[in-house]
Amino acid sequence: MSVRPATPFLLVDGLVVRRNLQRLAEYADEFELAVRPHTKTHKSEILAKLQVEAGAYGLTVAKIGEAEVMSHVTDDLLLAYPVVDAEQAKRLAKLAAHNTVRVAVDSRFAIETLAAAARSASTTMGVLIDIDVGLHRTGVQTVGQSLVLAELVDRTAGLRLDGLFCYPGHVWVMPEAQGPLLGEVSDLLYETLGHWAEHGIEAAIVSGGSTPTCFQSHLVPELNEIRPGTYIFNDVNTWRGGFCRLEDCAARVVATVVSTAVPGQVVIDAGTKTLAADACVALPQSGHGYLPSFPEARIVKLSEEHGQLDVRECRHAPQLGERVEIIPNHICPCMNLQDRFWWKEEDGRIEPLPVDARGKVT
Amino acid sequence: MSVRPATPFLLVDGLVVRRNLQRLAEYADEFELAVRPHTKTHKSEILAKLQVEAGAYGLTVAKIGEAEVMSHVTDDLLLAYPVVDAEQAKRLAKLAAHNTVRVAVDSRFAIETLAAAARSASTTMGVLIDIDVGLHRTGVQTVGQSLVLAELVDRTAGLRLDGLFCYPGHVWVMPEAQGPLLGEVSDLLYETLGHWAEHGIEAAIVSGGSTPTCFQSHLVPELNEIRPGTYIFNDVNTWRGGFCRLEDCAARVVATVVSTAVPGQVVIDAGTKTLAADACVALPQSGHGYLPSFPEARIVKLSEEHGQLDVRECRHAPQLGERVEIIPNHICPCMNLQDRFWWKEEDGRIEPLPVDARGKVT
Repeated sequence: MSVRPATPFLLVDGLVVRRNLQRLAEYADEFELAVRPHTKTHKSEILAKLQVEAGAYGLTVAKIGEAEVMSHVTDDLLLAYPVVDAEQAKRLAKLAAHNTVRVAVDSRFAIETLAAAARSASTTMGVLIDIDVGLHRTGVQTVGQSLVLAELVDRTAGLRLDGLFCYPGHVWVMPEAQGPLLGEVSDLLYETLGHWAEHGIEAAIVSGGSTPTCFQSHLVPELNEIRPGTYIFNDVNTWRGGFCRLEDCAARVVATVVSTAVPGQVVIDAGTKTLAADACVALPQSGHGYLPSFPEARIVKLSEEHGQLDVRECRHAPQLGERVEIIPNHICPCMNLQDRFWWKEEDGRIEPLPVDARGKVT
Repeated sequence: MSVRPATPFLLVDGLVVRRNLQRLAEYADEFELAVRPHTKTHKSEILAKLQVEAGAYGLTVAKIGEAEVMSHVTDDLLLAYPVVDAEQAKRLAKLAAHNTVRVAVDSRFAIETLAAAARSASTTMGVLIDIDVGLHRTGVQTVGQSLVLAELVDRTAGLRLDGLFCYPGHVWVMPEAQGPLLGEVSDLLYETLGHWAEHGIEAAIVSGGSTPTCFQSHLVPELNEIRPGTYIFNDVNTWRGGFCRLEDCAARVVATVVSTAVPGQVVIDAGTKTLAADACVALPQSGHGYLPSFPEARIVKLSEEHGQLDVRECRHAPQLGERVEIIPNHICPCMNLQDRFWWKEEDGRIEPLPVDARGKVT
């Protein structure tokens, strides 16, 4: 490394990122799935471009502000988030003038809000009907409700019915055990699509996926599009969950040991304002991240700018002033805390890249 | 409100902020305590100025980048954080050319790093010796160790021994029950200062405090300076902990209900990327924030951009498209997620203010 950024900073290994993108592209090719990566994970135009170069069909975003940023990279954007505010819908309609804009919705209210904005801007927005496949966060609750909304979209000027949308975010079990749960998702989608077909409604897109389930998407043959986010980096959640190998984790926070005053403990300059506070989903007691070079160290406590490591089990504990690398539990909120990240090329050079869509919360 | 910002956004009530500042100023006056507010809470130059106008003696920061920002407001800065990196120490020494810069340290390593930077910049930095009073995060472990470091600073060119530093962050019990714990803190400080005095070492500053303990600082008569941060806003933590009233909470996230598809549940557009993931310290099961207008609603789950409210106990649940206000559990990481916040004046007008030191992580 010729540059030596001040800690804490986020370091992303370009080689691992490219390998992760390639792995998904090959899987998607094999099962004829369109990949529409969720860019909330990285919020970076440059990384979104890499995803498109690796074959992504379009991009997914959580917020309109993110859509505005990612429209620099693709002209096919899916807002995987309801829009129920007239002003916000207007912003989105503006974007639809020069892009294919699709939105996942679960209410008549959202449909009417979007339609009014689209008509007022003399444009058209695509709509996918969000159906709850088990997470119980958003999504219509029955096959019948999904048809009611699909038919409403189908006959509403300014909107185009693009298909069906689901998020199996509740499927957080090891890949070999996902079968039964994904079978249920498949059954529900099959039933829904059949019901729609009986009423002459077709779903061009059937969109699903998340990183834990993305390589098991063939167990839900109704899907023709997946929207994983984390897969580009992976993190302790995907690794401990059994969805990737440790060497597939591309992003690490680099921190410095700033205090060793308390016996058996080492304090690093990365707390919740750097690593984010998320516990590991599969192993909540495993601490706030993983140190590959100090596997016996456990980040037992985070405050805002301090990470407290229990190093009593370490044969060699990191020393005062030493730099350590931590794979975060959940990379998405971690990236969201950075203004920039450092990209490492295969030759070891590193350069800072902006987190373009950070702070685009509306 | 003439302006209607898109949600989610953070709204700060100027009247409540001013009242909170006034309350602390009066307490500090009564007990002759210097107030050095921790600006990590708001990261705002304008709010820091209000604190100085309310009588603050100087400002506290967590990071050198924050110190650089806050040097626009005061010329007396305390970095309540160890510095163990030579390059970082150089940055701080540069700041010391035109400001009084003080640093809390707990190691010989940090002292030597700071001294080298100070000498190289032909300046002087003040040092406070950090002693662990029970949190077990940083701080020397014994009275003897504190004297060793104090004497080292005292004889080191480039450094000035400013005094003793502690952070009683472990004292998180109701005010009426703080006596015994704060008594222990007092005993340790008394013993330390006595030991120093026996060796001819004086502590001009004895710095302590945190928001939960700040109005009980008179129970630790050794202190002559306190460094509360959260008190300017308060939050669910300080309210549920019994350290303020609900009406003393100055900051609220304004969010919109974006989905009501799942029965008994309302989804708002504020998740961990807006509210932060911190649980309430006093009542971890109380949910991810508090809605004053919907006290029966409980934010049971946050994902990145969704907040799931259980509204089954509500007589009137918020409706799709409606805006709601949430007092965050922990305002510091919440503010750190915003690029700006909205300041409400007494006449109801609101205006956006920048979070100047956000992202200054190094």
